Amino acid sequence: MVMENFSFQNPVKIIFGKNTISRIGPKIKAAGFNKILLLCGGGSIKKNGVYDQVSKSLNSQGIETVEVWGVRPNPILSKVREAIQVAREKNVQAILAVGGGSVIDSAKSIAAGFYLDDVWAAFEDKLDIVRALPLFTVLTVSGAASEMNQWAVLTNEVEKKKWSIGAEVLFPVLTIIDPSVQMSLPWLQTVAGAMDAIAHLLENYFMGADQETTLAIDEALMRTIIRMTDALQKNPKDYDSRANLVWAAGLAHAGLSSVAMKGGDWSAHGIEHGVSALHPEVAHGAGLGVIFPAWILYQQKVNPPIFKRWAKNVMAAATVAQAVNKFRALLKKWQAPVWLPDLGIKKTEIKAIAQNANGRGTLGNLKKLSLKDIQDILKLTLKK
Amino acid sequence: MVMENFSFQNPVKIIFGKNTISRIGPKIKAAGFNKILLLCGGGSIKKNGVYDQVSKSLNSQGIETVEVWGVRPNPILSKVREAIQVAREKNVQAILAVGGGSVIDSAKSIAAGFYLDDVWAAFEDKLDIVRALPLFTVLTVSGAASEMNQWAVLTNEVEKKKWSIGAEVLFPVLTIIDPSVQMSLPWLQTVAGAMDAIAHLLENYFMGADQETTLAIDEALMRTIIRMTDALQKNPKDYDSRANLVWAAGLAHAGLSSVAMKGGDWSAHGIEHGVSALHPEVAHGAGLGVIFPAWILYQQKVNPPIFKRWAKNVMAAATVAQAVNKFRALLKKWQAPVWLPDLGIKKTEIKAIAQNANGRGTLGNLKKLSLKDIQDILKLTLKK
Repeated sequence: MVMENFSFQNPVKIIFGKNTISRIGPKIKAAGFNKILLLCGGGSIKKNGVYDQVSKSLNSQGIETVEVWGVRPNPILSKVREAIQVAREKNVQAILAVGGGSVIDSAKSIAAGFYLDDVWAAFEDKLDIVRALPLFTVLTVSGAASEMNQWAVLTNEVEKKKWSIGAEVLFPVLTIIDPSVQMSLPWLQTVAGAMDAIAHLLENYFMGADQETTLAIDEALMRTIIRMTDALQKNPKDYDSRANLVWAAGLAHAGLSSVAMKGGDWSAHGIEHGVSALHPEVAHGAGLGVIFPAWILYQQKVNPPIFKRWAKNVMAAATVAQAVNKFRALLKKWQAPVWLPDLGIKKTEIKAIAQNANGRGTLGNLKKLSLKDIQDILKLTLKK
Repeated sequence: MVMENFSFQNPVKIIFGKNTISRIGPKIKAAGFNKILLLCGGGSIKKNGVYDQVSKSLNSQGIETVEVWGVRPNPILSKVREAIQVAREKNVQAILAVGGGSVIDSAKSIAAGFYLDDVWAAFEDKLDIVRALPLFTVLTVSGAASEMNQWAVLTNEVEKKKWSIGAEVLFPVLTIIDPSVQMSLPWLQTVAGAMDAIAHLLENYFMGADQETTLAIDEALMRTIIRMTDALQKNPKDYDSRANLVWAAGLAHAGLSSVAMKGGDWSAHGIEHGVSALHPEVAHGAGLGVIFPAWILYQQKVNPPIFKRWAKNVMAAATVAQAVNKFRALLKKWQAPVWLPDLGIKKTEIKAIAQNANGRGTLGNLKKLSLKDIQDILKLTLKK
């Protein structure tokens, strides 16, 4: 093998640590913006004090703020279109996303859509995104790593399609991460975030062969995410474990982890998008936890050395089968869904999920998956 | 402990891989520059074909080029001043550095000095660097990681001071890395580069306590650099090992490896700068290989858990003393200098080296070193 050529750049400025949220107003002001769209989720930031910190900081700089609330988990196109309308009517200069992946992904879609006739056309790959409103973020839930990358995923709820965009202009200008605000997250949300981050690493890792540096970094991040999540289960108030989980989860999908990995595989994500397109109540990370072990069992023969390496170096297991068992036991210990029925999904829905996931017929890079492959993977998510 | 707050940003664009050097001309042109200073070393790039590739690419875009040759290892202030003069007379718009750390560090000094009355004042911390000529680099020797960071080290050969600068405006705009051009490096230069990269990681690593993510990444990079260097000793023509060594060596000092590490310690570097300020013929990496094992033996009591962790996780040794022995054996196997006399330096010079290293009286962060500490560390570099 010869390691493939690559380009790498991640210009996002990160300010990380306790009591850092108050810096958002001065930073936006210093960047030259006086009127912004403030995008938020369902209101948890009003309970944990983040909204107050952000508002106070923006007000201190006299920054005019137009608020749009109500971005949901598995964010939807209609909400993005609504916010684009508001952004245009109020003529904002930039966007501040305060939340997790759903809010930040929506903000990226709004930032790009601001300059497009129809933002969904970008998700359908009918056009390139070359311009976007500048994006600032204050992170409140880790896992998606949207705060550190140029990607966004959105659900077209009418057409039941959960698709993605990516563009250089979608990197946030600045992200503020105060890990202490994630102390109040429900445990299962922490677990779903950790699983999402691990999945981002796995999508790249299993493409591996000769990219020793990337593989070593990915293993380091996976082991760290698992150890930090374990530590938080024992002591939810452990700041250092939370801070390291949050930082590792961001790095897991910020470019470095996928260097020379041929773009990653992303078919496990594609299958999960089939699940959550039809079941928007399923947390993305929870769905990935169910699908990835099955995906690994099904795919291991395609690139045996790398699956064995993962078993040994990440799961400390002798075989891939044992590693998958350990992984499922870990999910169970974390109280996360392990099997498809744990997500409230019936065996009879497998065909519809597979068909949705296979919508564009392009799933898989390690191996291109057929509709039957996807169904067979989903069958391995049923407890025997 | 509570993990310290940090800021992180590294905007450098990297183009990495075989046959990528031809992209330099179009990239400089696209950035809007028509007249540049081309800074080079002693002529090896005329032998390995890199100069021809660069010239052809620049000429293809009609970019006017002012060449300055003769940057030496352990680069010196007078050469930088000469190049600043040329850059001003010819009114260049940007700098292209083609070489390793010495050339790129010099280019950063020129880029900053272009706008300063006296560039050395910046090294003396008498002013902040807020403006610099845009810098492009084509890397031909790995180790310093200057191609991926905002730092530069320069020797004031009159005052015998080897000091450093750092500023956001000194990040290269674009770096092109074709690892295959390093296939023709003398073996000891590859080893010196690997040792330099390991030293960058160690300077940060031993500050560690609660930065689990950074520690895990640093361990991954150290193990990778050691494994890849071993592989290259067996097979110097192994592209994948070279490519992974080159990439890991860059990442070793590009910001990520020092996240939340309180700025690193840097006293082993300081002691080495004392060595090479007085002995410019000593390769920086070679000097570090001699000093770091002694430094570790001397400092291990200051932060025992992290030294033990290094012994176990990086050197697979039971004790720090055993790990240091393994490390010295590795250097010997690589045919690198292990002891101070191997560098052609006499025991009687220890005092002068220590005095030079202690010039500013600020050496050490893990523990502030006295002149006696520095001498005692240097004594541990003498074979018993």
